[in-house]
Amino acid sequence: MTVLRVGIVGLGNQMQENLLPTLLQMPDIRIVAVCDSDLARAAQIHRFISDVVITDDFDHMLDTGTLDAVVMACPPQAHRDLSLKAMAKGVHVFVEKPPCFTLSELENLIEVSRQTNVITGVGMNFKFAKPMRQLRDITRTEQFGKVVHIQLNHYASKPTAPLWGLDSTLRSFLLAQAIHTIDLGVTFGGGELRDIESRVQRHDDSLLVSLELQFSTGATVSLLSGTMFPYFEFDMKIVSSKSMMVELNNLWNITMHEPEHGTSATGTAKRWRGAWQPGPLDSGYERSGYFGELEKFFDAVRNHTPYEANFESLLPTFKVIEQICYADSQRDIAPVLPLRADHFAKSKAQVGA
Amino acid sequence: MTVLRVGIVGLGNQMQENLLPTLLQMPDIRIVAVCDSDLARAAQIHRFISDVVITDDFDHMLDTGTLDAVVMACPPQAHRDLSLKAMAKGVHVFVEKPPCFTLSELENLIEVSRQTNVITGVGMNFKFAKPMRQLRDITRTEQFGKVVHIQLNHYASKPTAPLWGLDSTLRSFLLAQAIHTIDLGVTFGGGELRDIESRVQRHDDSLLVSLELQFSTGATVSLLSGTMFPYFEFDMKIVSSKSMMVELNNLWNITMHEPEHGTSATGTAKRWRGAWQPGPLDSGYERSGYFGELEKFFDAVRNHTPYEANFESLLPTFKVIEQICYADSQRDIAPVLPLRADHFAKSKAQVGA
Amino acid sequence: MTVLRVGIVGLGNQMQENLLPTLLQMPDIRIVAVCDSDLARAAQIHRFISDVVITDDFDHMLDTGTLDAVVMACPPQAHRDLSLKAMAKGVHVFVEKPPCFTLSELENLIEVSRQTNVITGVGMNFKFAKPMRQLRDITRTEQFGKVVHIQLNHYASKPTAPLWGLDSTLRSFLLAQAIHTIDLGVTFGGGELRDIESRVQRHDDSLLVSLELQFSTGATVSLLSGTMFPYFEFDMKIVSSKSMMVELNNLWNITMHEPEHGTSATGTAKRWRGAWQPGPLDSGYERSGYFGELEKFFDAVRNHTPYEANFESLLPTFKVIEQICYADSQRDIAPVLPLRADHFAKSKAQVGA
Amino acid sequence: MTVLRVGIVGLGNQMQENLLPTLLQMPDIRIVAVCDSDLARAAQIHRFISDVVITDDFDHMLDTGTLDAVVMACPPQAHRDLSLKAMAKGVHVFVEKPPCFTLSELENLIEVSRQTNVITGVGMNFKFAKPMRQLRDITRTEQFGKVVHIQLNHYASKPTAPLWGLDSTLRSFLLAQAIHTIDLGVTFGGGELRDIESRVQRHDDSLLVSLELQFSTGATVSLLSGTMFPYFEFDMKIVSSKSMMVELNNLWNITMHEPEHGTSATGTAKRWRGAWQPGPLDSGYERSGYFGELEKFFDAVRNHTPYEANFESLLPTFKVIEQICYADSQRDIAPVLPLRADHFAKSKAQVGA
Repeated sequence: MTVLRVGIVGLGNQMQENLLPTLLQMPDIRIVAVCDSDLARAAQIHRFISDVVITDDFDHMLDTGTLDAVVMACPPQAHRDLSLKAMAKGVHVFVEKPPCFTLSELENLIEVSRQTNVITGVGMNFKFAKPMRQLRDITRTEQFGKVVHIQLNHYASKPTAPLWGLDSTLRSFLLAQAIHTIDLGVTFGGGELRDIESRVQRHDDSLLVSLELQFSTGATVSLLSGTMFPYFEFDMKIVSSKSMMVELNNLWNITMHEPEHGTSATGTAKRWRGAWQPGPLDSGYERSGYFGELEKFFDAVRNHTPYEANFESLLPTFKVIEQICYADSQRDIAPVLPLRADHFAKSKAQVGA
Repeated sequence: MTVLRVGIVGLGNQMQENLLPTLLQMPDIRIVAVCDSDLARAAQIHRFISDVVITDDFDHMLDTGTLDAVVMACPPQAHRDLSLKAMAKGVHVFVEKPPCFTLSELENLIEVSRQTNVITGVGMNFKFAKPMRQLRDITRTEQFGKVVHIQLNHYASKPTAPLWGLDSTLRSFLLAQAIHTIDLGVTFGGGELRDIESRVQRHDDSLLVSLELQFSTGATVSLLSGTMFPYFEFDMKIVSSKSMMVELNNLWNITMHEPEHGTSATGTAKRWRGAWQPGPLDSGYERSGYFGELEKFFDAVRNHTPYEANFESLLPTFKVIEQICYADSQRDIAPVLPLRADHFAKSKAQVGA
Repeated sequence: MTVLRVGIVGLGNQMQENLLPTLLQMPDIRIVAVCDSDLARAAQIHRFISDVVITDDFDHMLDTGTLDAVVMACPPQAHRDLSLKAMAKGVHVFVEKPPCFTLSELENLIEVSRQTNVITGVGMNFKFAKPMRQLRDITRTEQFGKVVHIQLNHYASKPTAPLWGLDSTLRSFLLAQAIHTIDLGVTFGGGELRDIESRVQRHDDSLLVSLELQFSTGATVSLLSGTMFPYFEFDMKIVSSKSMMVELNNLWNITMHEPEHGTSATGTAKRWRGAWQPGPLDSGYERSGYFGELEKFFDAVRNHTPYEANFESLLPTFKVIEQICYADSQRDIAPVLPLRADHFAKSKAQVGA
Repeated sequence: MTVLRVGIVGLGNQMQENLLPTLLQMPDIRIVAVCDSDLARAAQIHRFISDVVITDDFDHMLDTGTLDAVVMACPPQAHRDLSLKAMAKGVHVFVEKPPCFTLSELENLIEVSRQTNVITGVGMNFKFAKPMRQLRDITRTEQFGKVVHIQLNHYASKPTAPLWGLDSTLRSFLLAQAIHTIDLGVTFGGGELRDIESRVQRHDDSLLVSLELQFSTGATVSLLSGTMFPYFEFDMKIVSSKSMMVELNNLWNITMHEPEHGTSATGTAKRWRGAWQPGPLDSGYERSGYFGELEKFFDAVRNHTPYEANFESLLPTFKVIEQICYADSQRDIAPVLPLRADHFAKSKAQVGA
């Protein structure tokens, strides 16, 4: 396979814990340059590989002109601005989420990516997590039938204050955390997003966000998320038109509830279900999706085909994020308010209406 | 304790499987009369006790004039009509759910119960289930804080056709099944019901019902239910203002997620949670709530104090049921429809506005 | 069905919590007499039924001559002595475990039961627990193959002192607790018991008992039990010659591991297993075995057929108990001792050799 | 930290799936040479790194004289023979398990490692798995008390035929699989191994191995393993003198049973336990122990301190393996045999007696 020459930008936690180790063990990928505003941190790369350029100047990195792609893990404003620079040079771009702050910024990034004809990607690792692939395979079988409803619970404990110089903790949370689960809702909902409803509850610095989505397929999504939980966990359920329900618990366990289930020694009998779990020695970055997200991005670069998690794929997700923030901002003038405890925000919108 | 003389009505499955065995092992209760439209079925009682009147005539049963209370497990119309007769004679009344078909019927039953000053009760066993009591104790502690959100998932596979001569499968399902979980939402939500939203999805003969409730306490409830599941199961989660979440799985397992948790040998450490389960030999009718619902009803009769699950307690639940049915009936003329797949019903209402 | 007239003896906890409620809801059974050394406690029965003789004199109870069977929950010495009296009068006998203290006492009880030709039974409820029945059905299928090994873990926290006037805490524990799991080992091991090995470890007043059994079927059993645990729990695993393993966790959950397993939407795929659990409203005394043990005893009485858990069925279990106690008593002179921490007891015996 | 120059030997599955990816992402480690009998396979390394010598001649690799250590994943005979060569050149040695076939071979390797004063290591990743570290920390606390018993269940489905040119499937299984769990028993048992008992059962090509160990600490180990299972899984339980039991399920879930447990909102209450699980995005090679085993080996090399999993550490484990094989070979002449189904092997031995 063609070896791709990659520059990485931002040697912070996410890069050091997930993206860098994944890149280091990925075949036919060479890290040839590292850029970090802190040169000493950039130099950390030498603990792993010797022959690599380090710089604190992204333009300089691009000018070396030897890069097939850049992989960034920075604050959103850097993702946005450096992506524009990279695309301008025809360098393919993969950024950690979020790629930017707002829907209009995203639309601009998409516009430029079209003009420059580069492959773009965002680090939506949940979408590429191995058990999520199993769910997608399951939900596509004829036996499973049509997806009727998806319930997503995404438990988080932060952020409890605005990030990246934003003034909104809500937007910070949606861009840093809920973006994953909203994107999963869009992915499994299928078709076109038709209706968005949201409610935001607050306690001290913590948020609780309830979201209802409807899609042209007839599928609905309910999402419960927020920072009002003790630690990060995740579960989802998918209900089908054939009375099946598949559950994913924390990217670990899959449970399949179906009308007829049993074992070779019991035959089908009441209350049996199928359960799956990974092997005890499950290792690496495939289950968590970091390997898959990058592997498929580089495949797209090699074949110059669109990448599943490119900038464009996030349009519905950002529409949802904007709508949640807008609705929350409107809460003081919400007509239903007189009947409500006043820390509620409630909304209903027809997307693209 | 005063021995209470009880007449039972309707010796069908629910009576034979749950109420009768519970009554037979309950101290200071005597079953003195059994009424069933099928005398042969009424006579089944003689397999358990000898000295008991059997009849197929409820009026006759009442006229024996020796009853402190009647316990019924019949179709709703019988619950409604026979309750009115019993109350008229000053006999206390416990009926299986549902007590009747509509909100206005319920309001009439409540009115009569006030005039006749009898104790009324409905078999809301979930509310009296032992683990539910634990949840109520937990959610009332200062450490747990304020209930912010309750998520209820109630999986059912029937009814897929109208029951009891009704023409609506939806109402039949709500009265036969969802009534329990709606009542739990009302119970844990607390305060006054402020807002109801519902959505009904259909596939073949199966239903999926999504419900959102808001309460004057600020608490919100999301409920997912329906008949689109392979078998009956149940789970719920309660999120608190102090970043705790308590989970109940199927009336079996309780999991307590809290910011600080550990063991005596680990100290508090990340990702530890508390887990509870009943003992291996857990037996009888306490865990499932059948014992508690009847025990507390008879206590109320003895002390002539109001019973927690009396007719009146079901008012908010029936308001919710009416609203769901109304909204569903309006779906063809819902203004948002043009944007929706047309098997949706969607609604929003201010209760008591 | 013939109505059986039953006398109950000993209105202590076990009777009040499990046996009495089960008898009260069992069809075609009449409790006609109650005997307790404490007459006031015997009189408690009147809270449940009126027309019943109460006495503190077992001989008197028998002399009423109207009893088909007696059901006892007393100390072992009473089970032993009163069983002999009842059998002498041709009254069928069901006793809580243990029926007596020693193997020779059991052999005597068996001898008398043969002479008097009465039906005897012991309250081995685990054996009649509903999920245990499922395991027995599973292990008898051709698909499951031959039982190769059974692992039984029985966690208890008491007794930590001798019971019933015995001088041995070990024997007390074996008769009060381990008797259930040893009996399960014998039941699933099948065939004839060939070899017994045991080890007893002590800490303060707590015991840990390891047991290995071999059967003529080729099946082996390993049992870990004792009082060194925080609370009573139970799990077992059965390994088959066809590479299947079925797990039972606490009489609640069954997991079936088999080479080929999947769901209708996944087909067989790696690491899928079958999982079963009881319904949320599972109630009564069937799952825990109290209903089944009595129902099948009364069936045996009615049909005068041998009862599965009669005195005779406990012979191998009592041989194991005697062997464990004997081995433990020999530990100070065990030849291997010099190499051992001296709180060990170790043994090996050919049964019936 | 000093950068270490490492040569890797054998680019088979285990190297490609676990050791190589771990080495590639490990700081201060450089892979400078790769040896494989199949040069084309050795050349695979160039998909990951460019500047590396490839060879099919181990002697040549050593002669380059630039290696601090070699990491091998080969058949045992190669581990044995190449380790001797590497040690002779003073090159530190890390080999996948098993390092050799027999106890005497291991003793020879240990002898040579002493003479040559090199650091040796074996890939006992279970011992270095993150949850295993937690268990070791837990079992060392004063609150946990003394380890009384360890139960290890190690489920495998292969090998069902001899490996590596051996004539014994049993020895192949013990060296390929059970070596991990035996080593864990030795690790948690502590002190000196005092007594070994084993039993081997066979069905078709499948094995079931039961093992009992006793240690000078008073701790006992029971191990159930074999190839008679549908897939590889693992669980262990540790019982303490203070009535605690900690459970590890499949290197995923830890459950801590203790006499007093509860939550901040419940206080200590009956049947509560502590449960731990890794985060949903747990990635890399730490949980499975591949990172830890190599990281600590290289630390030992840098500081020239003994490595926890060196050749010597496996002496008790190999004694156990030899004893199991010996006992099995003696089964036809076992004195107890007449009483046994003849596919049994049974034994008892005083180690080092």
